[in-house]
Amino acid sequence: MATKPKNAFYAQSGGVTAVINASAAGVIETARKHKSKIGKVLAGRNGIIGALNEDLIDTSRESPAAIRALMHTPGGAFGSCRYKLKGVEKGGHEYERLLEVFRAHDIGYFFYNGGNDSADTCLKVSRIAAETGYPLVAVHVPKTIDNDLPITDNCPGFGSVAKYVATSMREAGLDVESMAETSTKVFVLEVMGRHAGWITAATGLAQERPGQAPHVLLFPEIAFDEPAFLAKVDDCVKRFGHCSIGVSEGLQDKDGKFLSESGLRDAFGHAQLGGVAPLVANLVKRKLGYKYHWAVADYLQRSARHIASKTDLEQSYAVGKAAVELAVKGVSGVMPTIVRASSRPYRWKIGVAKLEDVANVEKKMPRDFITPDGFHITAKCRNYLLPLIGGEAFPPFENGLPRYVRLKNAAVRRKTKTAPAP
Amino acid sequence: MATKPKNAFYAQSGGVTAVINASAAGVIETARKHKSKIGKVLAGRNGIIGALNEDLIDTSRESPAAIRALMHTPGGAFGSCRYKLKGVEKGGHEYERLLEVFRAHDIGYFFYNGGNDSADTCLKVSRIAAETGYPLVAVHVPKTIDNDLPITDNCPGFGSVAKYVATSMREAGLDVESMAETSTKVFVLEVMGRHAGWITAATGLAQERPGQAPHVLLFPEIAFDEPAFLAKVDDCVKRFGHCSIGVSEGLQDKDGKFLSESGLRDAFGHAQLGGVAPLVANLVKRKLGYKYHWAVADYLQRSARHIASKTDLEQSYAVGKAAVELAVKGVSGVMPTIVRASSRPYRWKIGVAKLEDVANVEKKMPRDFITPDGFHITAKCRNYLLPLIGGEAFPPFENGLPRYVRLKNAAVRRKTKTAPAP
Repeated sequence: MATKPKNAFYAQSGGVTAVINASAAGVIETARKHKSKIGKVLAGRNGIIGALNEDLIDTSRESPAAIRALMHTPGGAFGSCRYKLKGVEKGGHEYERLLEVFRAHDIGYFFYNGGNDSADTCLKVSRIAAETGYPLVAVHVPKTIDNDLPITDNCPGFGSVAKYVATSMREAGLDVESMAETSTKVFVLEVMGRHAGWITAATGLAQERPGQAPHVLLFPEIAFDEPAFLAKVDDCVKRFGHCSIGVSEGLQDKDGKFLSESGLRDAFGHAQLGGVAPLVANLVKRKLGYKYHWAVADYLQRSARHIASKTDLEQSYAVGKAAVELAVKGVSGVMPTIVRASSRPYRWKIGVAKLEDVANVEKKMPRDFITPDGFHITAKCRNYLLPLIGGEAFPPFENGLPRYVRLKNAAVRRKTKTAPAP
Repeated sequence: MATKPKNAFYAQSGGVTAVINASAAGVIETARKHKSKIGKVLAGRNGIIGALNEDLIDTSRESPAAIRALMHTPGGAFGSCRYKLKGVEKGGHEYERLLEVFRAHDIGYFFYNGGNDSADTCLKVSRIAAETGYPLVAVHVPKTIDNDLPITDNCPGFGSVAKYVATSMREAGLDVESMAETSTKVFVLEVMGRHAGWITAATGLAQERPGQAPHVLLFPEIAFDEPAFLAKVDDCVKRFGHCSIGVSEGLQDKDGKFLSESGLRDAFGHAQLGGVAPLVANLVKRKLGYKYHWAVADYLQRSARHIASKTDLEQSYAVGKAAVELAVKGVSGVMPTIVRASSRPYRWKIGVAKLEDVANVEKKMPRDFITPDGFHITAKCRNYLLPLIGGEAFPPFENGLPRYVRLKNAAVRRKTKTAPAP
């Protein structure tokens, strides 16, 4: 009698993206093709929390069409979470709890879909399983809009945000240009990326020729120099009649303090977190007197599946698929990567990185991707970024709106007796 | 010898839209089909200011392909302005200056593309021309994202914003739903519409079933009731785990004071204008303790040609075309309107309204379009709105980004000797 194949556990971690569900589709569809090696794919409801609470979703209950529809559905279809497992050293035993749940559900494969933190968690789970003699193949599936994972050329999830912010900046820039003669002269768009300026850089792709939006970029890697910034904006308005600015939410002063934490207060004196765009816009108004508008894209940028990058979508699917293909070969403690073979024409393939080389390493923008004055991207950066936003992959529309799938997310019956983790 | 046909003057007025250039294309393409009646179409650079300064653009220098490309290009291709003409009563003589420039350039047709204010201007120009014996046919071409013009069933420009905000809310809502277990529970999206809640209402279209985003809408027509709002949000989070909110920039308290003016101040104590979303989000955090995110769509919403409504695009073109067809018949002092023949299936045709019935009248949301509790839209509102976002009309893409046209905008040689208006 053949051994019964082990089940797989899949969870989404951290901030979701417009295409993280494509990775889920890659994992589930590929697992379904390896029935002799993988039984069911059980997903954690709300990420790793679902494993700790033994709140598992039986993805075998979803139709092939529903899994396919994950390709065009943003958000995290099974729920995600921001939660770092507590190890023994922190007085917790959450890794042990995880293995208890895995054992109860006969889980032999662990697919963790996330960024730096989750790569670290995936590595630890794989080590603790090995130490305790529990047979587990653990593969990390990369995902982060921040594009800050090392080794991989780029991160699934980033290309779609990049396409969204570049498109939005190009469109808003045309608007500002129309209005500048008598009205708005300065426009500020705030984008995500608290420590790495990749998304800010992507807004720069909107510009085809000097004089077009964006005129100024403010990166988290470059300490905010107020006089230099104001001089740049003023020069820009005087030369072109208007100035559009892309700013990272993580813009810092020379002491490394976030500008967004520098003290917006409401009428009651309560601190107002977030919102570096209004601060920057207000500064321009106060010091230069120009009329402004500002936008904060926030969640819109990372959920805008309607303007996702086809390249990003394909890569997100490919890393999910590759993770399963590695796992059925017994390769553990790794992460599939994107390897760039050439930029023009763009060609890429899947590679593999060891998790110990990935976990907790943050890839920031290289200095030569930013112009010497610190306010824009270089041609080198543009060549790197441009392929990542390539191609369109519009979702189906119904009644004027994108038709996104909602899964059944049927619960698996509980088997352990231990109380759920707090 | 046949009389030489008179030239036409076209100008864009006020805030631009994702599809105002489609109206320009409608005017220009239709004028080119009536060469025996209309000579050149001269456009005002930066709107009516261009006429006062005699800074005119010769659109006959643009190729048919360039004019066609206006169909998929957001912003105002000739520039717009926020400027109200000063009449004799204000000590100015700007209407007279306008007619002087019109006379110098043999202009017999005036097409003014805008909202309430420009309808009023168009009417005044038509009256002053008649009083002074200057032969001028003046037709207003409706445009406003605010959807607040009377008589017409809806306003060109609105449907595309509506589609953008509903899509964005649906996408961000899925994101929040994914994160709510351990992170963001409340999301606030601020949209435009300072006096009328049409855009806020459109975010409501994102919801297919109760429990889905948006859960709460805050209209400018409904005075903000803080305790009722907080109770609603709290109930929502307790029932569904999360709460997504659409709020109008024009939200007011019971005394009619804009919340956005109620006093966000930066670290230096300077008033921070705009941004009702952070105020509302902060209120929720302070009173209910829920983690929040907020977004301010600002110009992104009204320039998002990449997700324009096909219906809106067609109507925007149609009103431009109809304006010229009315004008060549000698009909003056009017505005083409959208007349709804049926909602299901959606059928519409072009009608005509007199400018004296349009100018300075503002159409707000009817009370029966808003639920009794004031926090959402009714089925009646949904039936009205849904056809307006119908159909997709994606722009062409190149290198991953929408390819938008930039016209030559060649200047017409000056003919008057009067100094430009101040």
